[in-house]
Amino acid sequence: MKALVYLGPGEKAWKEVALPKIQHPTDVIVRIDTTTICGSDLHILKGDVPAVTPGRILGHEGVGTITEVGSSVTSLAVGDNVILSCIKSCGHCNFCKQGLFAHCLGEEGAVGIGWIFGHLIDGTQAEFVRVPYAETSVYKVPEGVTNQQAVMLSDILPTGFEIGVQNGQTKPGDVVAVIGAGPVGLAVIMTAGLYGPSKIISIDLDANRMEQAKKFGATDGVNSGDPQWKKKVMALTDGWGVDVAVEAVGLPATFDMATQIVRPGGHVANVGVHGKPVELRMQDLWIHNITISMGLVNTNTTPMLLKLVAEGKLNVDKFASHHFKLDEMLAAYDTFSRAAETKALKVIIER
Amino acid sequence: MKALVYLGPGEKAWKEVALPKIQHPTDVIVRIDTTTICGSDLHILKGDVPAVTPGRILGHEGVGTITEVGSSVTSLAVGDNVILSCIKSCGHCNFCKQGLFAHCLGEEGAVGIGWIFGHLIDGTQAEFVRVPYAETSVYKVPEGVTNQQAVMLSDILPTGFEIGVQNGQTKPGDVVAVIGAGPVGLAVIMTAGLYGPSKIISIDLDANRMEQAKKFGATDGVNSGDPQWKKKVMALTDGWGVDVAVEAVGLPATFDMATQIVRPGGHVANVGVHGKPVELRMQDLWIHNITISMGLVNTNTTPMLLKLVAEGKLNVDKFASHHFKLDEMLAAYDTFSRAAETKALKVIIER
Amino acid sequence: MKALVYLGPGEKAWKEVALPKIQHPTDVIVRIDTTTICGSDLHILKGDVPAVTPGRILGHEGVGTITEVGSSVTSLAVGDNVILSCIKSCGHCNFCKQGLFAHCLGEEGAVGIGWIFGHLIDGTQAEFVRVPYAETSVYKVPEGVTNQQAVMLSDILPTGFEIGVQNGQTKPGDVVAVIGAGPVGLAVIMTAGLYGPSKIISIDLDANRMEQAKKFGATDGVNSGDPQWKKKVMALTDGWGVDVAVEAVGLPATFDMATQIVRPGGHVANVGVHGKPVELRMQDLWIHNITISMGLVNTNTTPMLLKLVAEGKLNVDKFASHHFKLDEMLAAYDTFSRAAETKALKVIIER
Amino acid sequence: MKALVYLGPGEKAWKEVALPKIQHPTDVIVRIDTTTICGSDLHILKGDVPAVTPGRILGHEGVGTITEVGSSVTSLAVGDNVILSCIKSCGHCNFCKQGLFAHCLGEEGAVGIGWIFGHLIDGTQAEFVRVPYAETSVYKVPEGVTNQQAVMLSDILPTGFEIGVQNGQTKPGDVVAVIGAGPVGLAVIMTAGLYGPSKIISIDLDANRMEQAKKFGATDGVNSGDPQWKKKVMALTDGWGVDVAVEAVGLPATFDMATQIVRPGGHVANVGVHGKPVELRMQDLWIHNITISMGLVNTNTTPMLLKLVAEGKLNVDKFASHHFKLDEMLAAYDTFSRAAETKALKVIIER
Repeated sequence: MKALVYLGPGEKAWKEVALPKIQHPTDVIVRIDTTTICGSDLHILKGDVPAVTPGRILGHEGVGTITEVGSSVTSLAVGDNVILSCIKSCGHCNFCKQGLFAHCLGEEGAVGIGWIFGHLIDGTQAEFVRVPYAETSVYKVPEGVTNQQAVMLSDILPTGFEIGVQNGQTKPGDVVAVIGAGPVGLAVIMTAGLYGPSKIISIDLDANRMEQAKKFGATDGVNSGDPQWKKKVMALTDGWGVDVAVEAVGLPATFDMATQIVRPGGHVANVGVHGKPVELRMQDLWIHNITISMGLVNTNTTPMLLKLVAEGKLNVDKFASHHFKLDEMLAAYDTFSRAAETKALKVIIER
Repeated sequence: MKALVYLGPGEKAWKEVALPKIQHPTDVIVRIDTTTICGSDLHILKGDVPAVTPGRILGHEGVGTITEVGSSVTSLAVGDNVILSCIKSCGHCNFCKQGLFAHCLGEEGAVGIGWIFGHLIDGTQAEFVRVPYAETSVYKVPEGVTNQQAVMLSDILPTGFEIGVQNGQTKPGDVVAVIGAGPVGLAVIMTAGLYGPSKIISIDLDANRMEQAKKFGATDGVNSGDPQWKKKVMALTDGWGVDVAVEAVGLPATFDMATQIVRPGGHVANVGVHGKPVELRMQDLWIHNITISMGLVNTNTTPMLLKLVAEGKLNVDKFASHHFKLDEMLAAYDTFSRAAETKALKVIIER
Repeated sequence: MKALVYLGPGEKAWKEVALPKIQHPTDVIVRIDTTTICGSDLHILKGDVPAVTPGRILGHEGVGTITEVGSSVTSLAVGDNVILSCIKSCGHCNFCKQGLFAHCLGEEGAVGIGWIFGHLIDGTQAEFVRVPYAETSVYKVPEGVTNQQAVMLSDILPTGFEIGVQNGQTKPGDVVAVIGAGPVGLAVIMTAGLYGPSKIISIDLDANRMEQAKKFGATDGVNSGDPQWKKKVMALTDGWGVDVAVEAVGLPATFDMATQIVRPGGHVANVGVHGKPVELRMQDLWIHNITISMGLVNTNTTPMLLKLVAEGKLNVDKFASHHFKLDEMLAAYDTFSRAAETKALKVIIER
Repeated sequence: MKALVYLGPGEKAWKEVALPKIQHPTDVIVRIDTTTICGSDLHILKGDVPAVTPGRILGHEGVGTITEVGSSVTSLAVGDNVILSCIKSCGHCNFCKQGLFAHCLGEEGAVGIGWIFGHLIDGTQAEFVRVPYAETSVYKVPEGVTNQQAVMLSDILPTGFEIGVQNGQTKPGDVVAVIGAGPVGLAVIMTAGLYGPSKIISIDLDANRMEQAKKFGATDGVNSGDPQWKKKVMALTDGWGVDVAVEAVGLPATFDMATQIVRPGGHVANVGVHGKPVELRMQDLWIHNITISMGLVNTNTTPMLLKLVAEGKLNVDKFASHHFKLDEMLAAYDTFSRAAETKALKVIIER
């Protein structure tokens, strides 16, 4: 079969590789019908994620059709149309039992991290993929949901909702600020609407992206390049700051912004992937009665979000900006890697 | 009357001042029967808290007898024996309505901070004190509770419980680590027991204090001067770290320690007062699924803690290490300021 | 002044009475600009609420202008446009300190019940009203909110939200069923939308009311007169029942319906006012993992709901079905008491 | 092998039956080393549970040694000493994914109920037992925990804690009343201590059992045969009632008692197994701001409780009142069925 293979920093290829095989009774094999590319795939390609070794098939998002099931699998069958989650869950380790799938200790890629596809085992940017712990890690696509919609459930939608909205303890009436209007920031904006906020403020440097943010539910936009940005955010509240400040960039400067605009009693939710330490102004913040949260998605809200997509309550088609075929994988990478220019959000790659 | 007056950095006096008077219908005047000294009083005396201006009577902890009530006060009467809370609450501002008394916007000292005694208005290290918003800021001492016990409810016990234990989301079965075994750290240790933890680990540099910590409920002690300290903490867990790490010192190094030992899904609760920024290793922590909390006590658990003291469930007499009379105030300060040497915890100062 | 006075079972009059006076330093006097009638006013008139004695001015909803303030009131001023809450809060009793204003122990009407207007003291269906505990019991109307909108905050909106939606622990993705599509049931339906449910099912005997319910946010309607009603509700879920079943009628039969359609792990929230015991089928329900909640509104979500009205997120004008002047009070009662026929929801009565 | 077999109402035998065999890759076979008898076993024997058919081996509690593992089992091995939970969890159905193991939809005994041992499949009062969904349904016994201690984790301890203490939303400072001082009531009393209550009141008709309750942590006892019982309970609170009232009997009268003594804002937690409807006085309770909860244990707190037993924080040996060998099964039943006379709590039956 063909797959997108990482060959070392800066090197990748769409090339012929061996078909995956069932290795454990709890595995299934899935034919990929729809996949996409994540910002972290670009990080891997830069060589920023040393755990990914040359020869690894990339990709942790995908929707497909089961072609083979392990001997202990009873609730899934060949032909089922399923969403592959970016996080595996063995279902029985200490962390899984607490719903902390992000840190699943299951034997596969046993380092206490649930993210294994395209990281510690071969991923979803391929014609076929082996899926470990299938019964506790995949979700059947309900009738009426398209593959394009379903693939947003692999990562982006639960990440925005769990790590941004829920960790931020968003509640009805809140003012929510989201710093960064890339795909994950937009997923935060869309799913924040599930908790009845009074305002959702999109903060970004790019006027075009903030305009787009309004299509996802932002009520206001503030350009972070404006020296008056903080004053403008405060003017959108009662003067004391926002209830929830979501960091969806991953830089020290944007993290600091979040701590500057959060009100007493409010919450900073970090969604961004960071590569450097940040300075936390504890001399001011110790008295400020805030929480700061961070983490990898557990995907335990995936079934609920999928239900809302099926009911037409979350219009996730908006994320799909470009369409490719699987064998146009390199073109898809090219378009996605030049997002500022191409205005790519999620590129849909189909069989 | 006599009072302990701040005269500028490094300068204080126990001197004659005017008696306080009712200024608002919601005020009461209280004769101080028991007071004590807090670490933050020492900070003020060093000149570290610029909001405190020369001439200010210090102290934010105290128990006393009401001698006069404002015209709108109906639920308190002359002769009532009451606990003065370190935090005032007007009861009707936006923050008070949400239980966030720490940021009460009430007119007195209207800067959005509930701590006003010995800070923005005259405090409790005096023979008499004016208490604003009395009906929403004082608590009657129940029968069977001594003044020495009651004064622990002014600040130290609710601070340890709310900011350490509750913000840390402590729950039955948890392993709780408390960094710093000073009075507030010990209050965290004592009140952590209210949530049925499996272990409470006291971490400190001073072997004597860790020994003392066991009297307050610590099950284990780890000396932070030991190069193997982290390994030793991990050995007391399943190898993945503690559920709750409480910082009760206020230094960048101890804050960093807390983030090193917290498990995935765990909580860092900052109780320490910080004077400098801290470096947060977001490059490692972003994926770690933790929360970090911080803040000033709201004192909304004071009635509950008082009930537990009255029922004999919290033996707070253990905090009282030394006893003085009001006119021995300067000696009390001397003893408390040399705590490492005198082994002072809370010095009880009585009429 | 003129007021609607209860004269004993079945008897009422719009008659001249004495103007109210400030009695306590915490009181204010309010000129009523807008008021309305509640179903419980009709209950009182039938003689069903013995605590209401002849001579009592009825009404517990209203918006008006402050004309006089007590001596301790500092945060309200003559001329302020305020919402009167159906629940008073003294702000300092044990129950108020826990946010349980519904059971405020404040001296006025001191029986542990927060509802006093038109019940234990004179109410709001009058030209003027005395408001006890004003600073902790009224809310300033924000700019851009009309009196007609604001009066929905006196009772109906917080009741629907707190007792139906919040007690029902509604969360994103839930299927919510609301039994009874009267004004309070519609308030449940409207505010359930704040938690992102996947479906809101209106259940009623009246096809017209169910049609109306869709304008308030219901996605589906089931006629409870249909012998297949339960089967139809189940068909709208995965077959296991609804997540949240709200009883908004107050009869044994409708209460039983709620317990029949709630799924394992789900919640029954009683909003209806009951006059008789109900039979609870514990032989089936003990194993069913449900909660049943009930209670009087606390109104502590009033500021939040008001913010959402001000932001245009809750279109409460839909509740206003008829308009009257104060001196048309008896006509307003007539219209409201024949709601089935007049299709009255809330009748707006203005100065 | 030998097993205790139900032969129809009133009939049972300790007789030779076939050895169990692995049926699914996720099964294990366990040699029973320690088992016990539950009150519900007596109900079954009376014929009260029609789902149990003649020929069924009874028992849903047990600790034993794994003798065989299914082909997909990787985290358990022959020789492991494990606790069998009274509730199975397939780990991947909708209910299991939400932690609602009590209603596991897994194929075995697929009626949406997690309790299958000694109910829908053969149970633990036997020399060997087949355990379905083993990796998600058994717990390894940690070092230092005896089988006698471990068997309390099969049912009684998590049931008391989850259905009584946690459903009752017990929190520090609460007054908790437990109606019924049988084994499960005592488990509620013991585990209520994990939330730092100010008082635990045991209410029972039997003076001897109330005395015993104090050994499990009750601070007070009230005899429900005393006509002044309610007054006495109220006198132990501030006059407004208890925060948490746990029903641990299963009768209409005791259920009603719980609703009489709960304070505004409080919680009634039903633990008892009911055979008849109860009358709920909604005419009084609708305004009372309470919740009533009920359900079957999920056992998701079993690992946590086991940790506390291992740390010596829960002295569960107190439950073991009598000891038997497996082939004395009928004598054990005889002793347990005459508990009022024999003062039996849990009878320990060992290999």
